[in-house]
Order: sequence, then C-alpha cells, then structure tokens
Amino acid sequence: MEDYAEYVTQLGKSARRAAGQLASLRGDVKTAALRHLAGALRDGRADLLAANARDVQAAQAAQMQPALIERLRLTDKRINSMADSVEQIAGQVDPVGQVIEGFVRPNGLRIEKIRVPIGVVLFFYESRPNVTSDAAALCLKSGNAIILRGGKESLQSNLAIAAIISASLAKSGIDPGAVQLIQSTDRALVPPLLKLDKYIDLVIPRGGESLIRAVVAESTIPVLKHFTGNCHIYVDADIAGMEQQVREVCVNSKTSYPGGAVCNAVEKIIFHKDAAAKLLANVCQDLAAKDVEIRGDERTRELYSKAKPATDSDWPLEYLSLVVAVKVVDSLDEAIAHINEFGSHHTDAILSNSKSAIDRFVAGVDSASLMVNASTRLADGGEYGLGAEIGISTDKLHARGPMGAADLTTYKWVVTGEGHLR
Amino acid sequence: MEDYAEYVTQLGKSARRAAGQLASLRGDVKTAALRHLAGALRDGRADLLAANARDVQAAQAAQMQPALIERLRLTDKRINSMADSVEQIAGQVDPVGQVIEGFVRPNGLRIEKIRVPIGVVLFFYESRPNVTSDAAALCLKSGNAIILRGGKESLQSNLAIAAIISASLAKSGIDPGAVQLIQSTDRALVPPLLKLDKYIDLVIPRGGESLIRAVVAESTIPVLKHFTGNCHIYVDADIAGMEQQVREVCVNSKTSYPGGAVCNAVEKIIFHKDAAAKLLANVCQDLAAKDVEIRGDERTRELYSKAKPATDSDWPLEYLSLVVAVKVVDSLDEAIAHINEFGSHHTDAILSNSKSAIDRFVAGVDSASLMVNASTRLADGGEYGLGAEIGISTDKLHARGPMGAADLTTYKWVVTGEGHLR
Repeated sequence: MEDYAEYVTQLGKSARRAAGQLASLRGDVKTAALRHLAGALRDGRADLLAANARDVQAAQAAQMQPALIERLRLTDKRINSMADSVEQIAGQVDPVGQVIEGFVRPNGLRIEKIRVPIGVVLFFYESRPNVTSDAAALCLKSGNAIILRGGKESLQSNLAIAAIISASLAKSGIDPGAVQLIQSTDRALVPPLLKLDKYIDLVIPRGGESLIRAVVAESTIPVLKHFTGNCHIYVDADIAGMEQQVREVCVNSKTSYPGGAVCNAVEKIIFHKDAAAKLLANVCQDLAAKDVEIRGDERTRELYSKAKPATDSDWPLEYLSLVVAVKVVDSLDEAIAHINEFGSHHTDAILSNSKSAIDRFVAGVDSASLMVNASTRLADGGEYGLGAEIGISTDKLHARGPMGAADLTTYKWVVTGEGHLR
Repeated sequence: MEDYAEYVTQLGKSARRAAGQLASLRGDVKTAALRHLAGALRDGRADLLAANARDVQAAQAAQMQPALIERLRLTDKRINSMADSVEQIAGQVDPVGQVIEGFVRPNGLRIEKIRVPIGVVLFFYESRPNVTSDAAALCLKSGNAIILRGGKESLQSNLAIAAIISASLAKSGIDPGAVQLIQSTDRALVPPLLKLDKYIDLVIPRGGESLIRAVVAESTIPVLKHFTGNCHIYVDADIAGMEQQVREVCVNSKTSYPGGAVCNAVEKIIFHKDAAAKLLANVCQDLAAKDVEIRGDERTRELYSKAKPATDSDWPLEYLSLVVAVKVVDSLDEAIAHINEFGSHHTDAILSNSKSAIDRFVAGVDSASLMVNASTRLADGGEYGLGAEIGISTDKLHARGPMGAADLTTYKWVVTGEGHLR
C-alpha cells in the first residue's frame, strides 16, 4: 500500500488556495470561464472519444453490465450535451452574494444573511464521465474548489476531461487548484483524504452503498450522502379512470433511461390488492414488452405467472438495470411501512385519485421526493427548475433531493451597528 | 466499563417512535403543550432550586472556576427566564409545513419544497441548566424528538428539569420519548450512542473542543458542531471620532455576561498599529477596571506595561473567563490572516470608519457572524430575531451561526402531476 499522505495533503492545500480566489471572483468572470470551458469541451471532442473508447473497451473485456457500459460511453451527442450543460450553468443566476434574508432590528441593528461558497468540496462519483464536467461547472459557478474522484472504469475519460478543464481554467486566469482530478483510483488513498478537515469542507459521495458507508465511517469532514435510489411506486386502491396513466407512469419510471441504470428509475412497484386485481397483470405485461425482468411476491405471481419469485434480498436492493420487483399489500399503511423500511429515502411515488390517500402517503413516507401521479424519473434538478445538479441528496441535512449550485453554498451573518452593545 | 448498548438502543427506538407522533402534531397542540410546560417549570421552582443547590455545592467543593459556577447556578430570576423562553417559543410561528418554495413548471408539473422536522436530535451541551428546557422546547416546536446529554456538573439540575418536562408532556398527551435525558454522564456511553444512525438523524455537540473532536471521530450520524467561540475584535486604523465607541464595544464584548463565560464574549482584541498608538492603553485600562486580566504581545506591553505576556498558546485559546489577549498588527490583511488561522469561525468584529476596510474584513474572515461596529455579544438568535436558539453553529453546512427552530427542520419535495412522464 502506497503512502498517499503527501499527495492528498497537496491536493487539499491547492484546493484551499484556489477557494480563496474563487470566493471573490466576480460573476461575469465565472460566466466567461464557463463559456470558454463549454467551447473547449466541444473542441476536444476527438481526444474525449479516443480516451473513452479505451475505457469502454476495458469495461467490455471485464464483462461490465451492458446498462453500465451504456452509462460510461461518450458519443458526439453526449459531448454536445456536456457542453450544453456547462453553458446552461454559465447562464444561471450567480448564487454567491445573494442576501437570503435581511432586516433591521428594533434597536437599529442591521442583520443580513449573505450567501457565500462552502469552500472545498470532495466528490466521489460513479463511472459516468458527464458528471465530471457538470460537477466542475457547478462548483466553479458557486465559487467552490472541487477535488474529483470518479469511478475507476471511467479513469481515462475523466483524465481527458480534466485536462481540457485545466487548460481552459488557465486561459481564464483561474487557479488550477479549482478543479483537481485524483489521478489514481487506488482505494488506499481514500482514508487519508477523508481526514483533511483542515482543507476540505464537504464530502459528497455518490454511488454504491459500501463506498458511502466506508466514507461515513472514515471521514472527519461533514458528509452529504447520495445513495443510489431504491425508488417505489405505490398504486393505490382508488385508480378508477386512470388505468392508462398508471401503466404509462410505471413503464416510463422504469425504462425511460437506457437500461434503467439511473438512481431515479423505479425499482419496486407496490399494488394495493384492489388495484392489483385490476391492473397488475397489464403493468407487468407492458414492462415485459420493454424487456424488463419482473420479480414478484407470491400474490404477484398468482396474477402474473411469468414473474420470477422475489426473495427477501430483493426489497432493499437497487438493481440499476431492467429489473423490477412487484408486491401486493392490503393497505396504504402497509405500503408506507414497507417503503420506509426498505427504501433509500430518495424518491417514491403514489398513483391515486384519493386526496386523503395522497396526503397520508406524502406525510408518511420519509423521502426526499414524493411524486404524486408522476414518473419517478422526474426527480431531477433540471425538471425541478434548479438547473444542473451535482446529485440527489438522500441526507436530511443541508440539502435534500436534487442539489443545484445554490445548495453548494452556505451563508455568513453580517451584522452592522453604530457602536451597538448588549 | 458498563455495556450501554441496550440502554442507548432503547433511547433511540423511543425517540424514533415519538418522532413519528411529533411530525404530524398540529401546531396548536404543540403550542398548548409548550405553554403547559412553562407553567410546570414555574410551579416546580422549589424542586429545581433544591436540585441545583446540590450541583452548585459539588462544583464548589470541586473548586470549579467561579464564572462556570455562576453559569451553573439557578435562581428565581433564571427559572422565570427559562419559563419565559419556553413561552416565547410557544408563540413563534410553527416552521413545520411551511412551503419554502413552490412553483409550476412549464409542463404543468407542480413542485413544492415543504418544511418537515429532521426527526431525532442528539444534543450534547455544557453545564448550563437553562439549555435543557430551551433545547427541549425548540425541538418540540419543530416536531423533533431530542435526546439530551448535559454536562456532568449539572446532572441533578437536569434530572429535575427533565422530570418536570416528562410529567408535563404526559399531561399534554405527547409521547414521553419526545424528550429524553440520558441519566448517566459516563463517557463510555457515548461511542455506542454515536453509532445509532438508524434512529438518530443529527448530533449537535456544544462545548469543549475535545468532546467535539471525539464526537466527530466516532459518529456515523451527521454532526453539526457548536465549538465555543474564540472571538476577535479588530480595531482598524481608521477610527477617528469613534474612540469612545471602540472603548465601549470592547468592554461590553468582554464583560456583559457574568464572568465572561459565554461563547460570544470577545477573547482577543487586535489593534492596527495606528489605532494602538491612540487607544490601546485606554481600552486595556477600561477592561482592567472591570477586573479583566490582560495578556499582551510585545508591542501591547510597550503601550500597556501592566499586561502579562501572551504566549503562542493564548491565540487559539478560549478563556471562558475574564481574560483577554491583545495584539498589535501592521495591516488589516495581517489581522484577517491571524483570525482565520487561530479563530474558531464563530463571531469576529471590526471597528472602523472605512467602508473598504469593512468590506475586506467581512469578505475575508471566514466566520459565521461578522460584526461591524457592534459588540460580539450581539451574535445571538434572540438578537437576530430568530427567537431562542439551540446554539451557535460553527459548521458551514445546514446552519451557520445562531440556530433557531427553523434550523431544526429539513424539507421534502412534493411533486404533483397528472400522469406526467419524462
């Protein structure tokens, strides 16, 4: 095991130094730098595709799941969309300097709560190269330095993207410590990194549960967890007249992202027994027609015999692929209890005509996003109008659900008097 | 060492159960329960004074610092003020259910960000009995269950307060798990408690640095640190005409709380060399006249020879007593660098006529509260108009500076469609 202490300390110091510059950069300078970066990504297309091809080839040789290879792959279209996303972030309102609240107290003391960058963010994420440029752009916009550590399968792609970012930042006169990609995917590097509370203000781990648990156990830096989603749809008893909508929402929630390899895809569909009798078989047939594998509990398999049996290990699992497990319950309360017990507090949906059932579901399910008669796939910063997102927080503190640039800020209280005493 | 695993798990389970009830309690029920509690505290005066007398006696026998004994002591006036504070919290607007943001997207999707309780809070705090009732009241108001762990010197007082709270909650029909005081001050109980991430959502440690570092190292639950304050006043070069104000603010910042044993008291006064020549001796004399011990760097002692020498260990230290250290610098930048290096990012003040010096100080000092021409003692939830506070966060995430009831909440995204797909 190599000794990474010096390497990671250097990363932390460089990021801290850059954060000092970033915090006081004017908004127009950041906007121009982001626009330059978008152009540089388009211009670097050939390099990016070549680097990505090496990652994809290695992943294929290692027999990675097809849906995950799909997620890893860069295409012309995806590179355009990376650049578009950076341009959109450039065009957003700058959150830094915003007066969140401001008032004058009866004694004349002026109180202002002013948005400022957090400082230095350490970001772990899955093998999905577009996340590299999105995260860098969101941090630049919000005045934070970022240390990036992507999944090992995407290392070549990420190195190519990071090289483009570094060159572009240099041309814009921005400290290269603003965006640093960790050059190694050795896990031994992680523990010393997570002790750098002197330089790093926030760790955002995205992805697998084992990585996140390891980060939480090791870190002396505050952590904002982004667990992958074990999302549910509950189909209520009261669905008269909305049968077609139920079928469409279930299919869209599972299949609208290629291979279902995305955190807001539905993984479990829970039918109230009355809805199951009417609609379970249709929904399963629709999903099967889209190549989705159905696993069911006993009552599901009575209504749709082609379902494979679901086991206890299915309920807490996120498949990240075209698999869904289906369950039949006797009541709304049973559904809520199941979701709170086995879900990941990410996104859960109810499909119902009943106001009282919807209200009970929304109040009772302890998740970041509650969808009412809408696809789970809509749980997304862009869909909510936040612009690009750095991820979807499954934590309750600081930010919950989709996190945009403003969620990468904190605030200062600025209190102005004229010799005020207490 | 006793095995506390079962005891702490039981605390966690009871709190989680109560949190389920609290989250859906109507505002008027919580208000009535808080009013009942205020009355019960007044009615329990004799018990509280008797229990507190035992704590104070033990503290005197153990030769506790006089300022800390003062902080520990309950009097008729302090019990009234505890009850008043609970009544004020009762009268505040209920943060739960508030729509923080709400809008309709171009596709007709309705997005609402709704304030909800965090769930279960674990709270460590110093030996200051009024904090027990304040914290319980703030958590009840915000719909959270709380597990309390006060300083060991205040155990008898806290047990008496907790008994009154439990009896009062029972009369209001509220689950007794809503407010639980840990009955032992054995430190061995802390590590298993900090692993209960299944039941506890947030840990707030207030007080000494060693406790807080231990909590951060052990906890798998998110932590919001409340370091005690090593607060600074910087007296700028440009103070023409405000000499009297400077003297008053310095004295008020140090001495307005008895014994200076409070986190927003000033601990360090830094003079620009030009201000030092004019005013350092006067400020030191004013403070000495109020029994404040002055420690100074070499340049301070040239101007005020009665100062004891300050050593390197003084600069990062919080005295929590009537001591202040004084330093002379050559520039504003030197002052900012010193404060960022040795301060605790709690509250720091600038006294100046110069807009540009004020702007640079406010932008450059990385602290929760920046006071401009005002006493550091004004850094307080009540003074900011937040009502009572559970403490002053020195963290950057979730809440920074004084934390009121609304800072003990999180939110849910509720997304309502009519079969919306992506």
